[in-house]
Amino acid sequence: MRHTTTRRNLMRGAAAGAALATTGAAGTALARPARAARRSPAVGKGPDIGILLYDGYSLLDPTGPAEVLSRLPGATVTMIAQERGPVRTDTGDVAVMAERRIADVDRLDVLLVPGAGNRGTVEAMRNKELLRWIGMIDRHSRWTTSVCTGSLVLAAAGLLDGRQATTYWASADYLRTHYDVTYLPERYVRSGKIITAAGVSAGLDMALYLASLIAGDSTAEAIQLAIEYDPRPPFDAGNAAKAGPELKERALRLLAESQK
Amino acid sequence: MRHTTTRRNLMRGAAAGAALATTGAAGTALARPARAARRSPAVGKGPDIGILLYDGYSLLDPTGPAEVLSRLPGATVTMIAQERGPVRTDTGDVAVMAERRIADVDRLDVLLVPGAGNRGTVEAMRNKELLRWIGMIDRHSRWTTSVCTGSLVLAAAGLLDGRQATTYWASADYLRTHYDVTYLPERYVRSGKIITAAGVSAGLDMALYLASLIAGDSTAEAIQLAIEYDPRPPFDAGNAAKAGPELKERALRLLAESQK
Repeated sequence: MRHTTTRRNLMRGAAAGAALATTGAAGTALARPARAARRSPAVGKGPDIGILLYDGYSLLDPTGPAEVLSRLPGATVTMIAQERGPVRTDTGDVAVMAERRIADVDRLDVLLVPGAGNRGTVEAMRNKELLRWIGMIDRHSRWTTSVCTGSLVLAAAGLLDGRQATTYWASADYLRTHYDVTYLPERYVRSGKIITAAGVSAGLDMALYLASLIAGDSTAEAIQLAIEYDPRPPFDAGNAAKAGPELKERALRLLAESQK
Repeated sequence: MRHTTTRRNLMRGAAAGAALATTGAAGTALARPARAARRSPAVGKGPDIGILLYDGYSLLDPTGPAEVLSRLPGATVTMIAQERGPVRTDTGDVAVMAERRIADVDRLDVLLVPGAGNRGTVEAMRNKELLRWIGMIDRHSRWTTSVCTGSLVLAAAGLLDGRQATTYWASADYLRTHYDVTYLPERYVRSGKIITAAGVSAGLDMALYLASLIAGDSTAEAIQLAIEYDPRPPFDAGNAAKAGPELKERALRLLAESQK
């Protein structure tokens, strides 16, 4: 029997994909199982993950970890901000929707605070309502996490006192001189239930590590394959410890010029 | 003189960051130069990059490359869809705003088509209006690119005939058996002005390569440092060629279960 494209499974691969057998069993590739029906039994089963958005965040900081963590069994990933609606990145070009207001959220299994450009980070660090909310969520969270300069926001909320942490390479001096924090130049640093990641793309590595803490190594490995995370950057320029001052200046200039 | 936090530069780092000297010159870290004033002269100077969103895309596919390409000098990155407004990912949990409608866009320097889950990919491959628009943009683009199963959408638009290309590992068989395409298991494959990337996270590697083609190696290296892309995944499970059938099944099952 000849199937139409809609009935085909586009992702069979070498393995007889169990996932796609499931899709097949649903009738056609286009059949959508009612989400509520599938998700409701997952309440209390998978983690409730909240990602804080605030004006001027860097796009990959929330979206990289969201891609990873959304594949955890039963997980819900929600973008949260002071107000519902689109929240713009540091370039001003792109906006992700905040689905919930911080005023409506008082418990999360996982909180993730992304980083931002200089302006966005400073504004977040001075936003007392935001810092109070972060502190309240942290009191009950299983994991409180950050990417990039999000660790400065956690520090401003008082959550990093006496801890080891990491941050964006260019913000390391600020973090260690302004807070009681031992900075470590690692991709991610765990201190108790707080996990901080280095700059922007480090959120991917941190999220896989967090996935392994939540669901075990074999699930984290499956997520890594699901997002085909076998990185092969065409250059070897991403490590600040190996970068000269000229490269660092170029990097910071590009960032500043791209930011609104 | 003691500065307040707002006047401080949070990202000075070891290098005397030129970027942050710029910020300082603007008065305070919070001063926002009017974006129009800074961006308007960039029209025709930097690339006009459009990223197509369609229902059910995978979040990292458009956002990883957007993070990279938005740092190109003078670049504009715009999310484009059939209608303006929020466009939901495959999980249904997250939405990115489409700022422009395809009907209003007839020229782009760079087009990027992300991948999606099975349902979203099939729908896009059957959407004649979308395919016609992709073909029209490609006729004048400098670069036409895809991430993950986005290459199946390019193939359905007739753009990959006779070419070498890559795609998501689990979609490779589909691509090579349904189209006149030579599949290569690489992170990204260039064929003329078309560049296809492997699954999800491969968009980051592809975007850095594309950045080097557009603006040269030293700019691409600076972008890599700007996003601190020195990947250190905690596991080594992202390469399908090294994965056994059980891991592949687990990966595809997690994907299917997370998708609405």
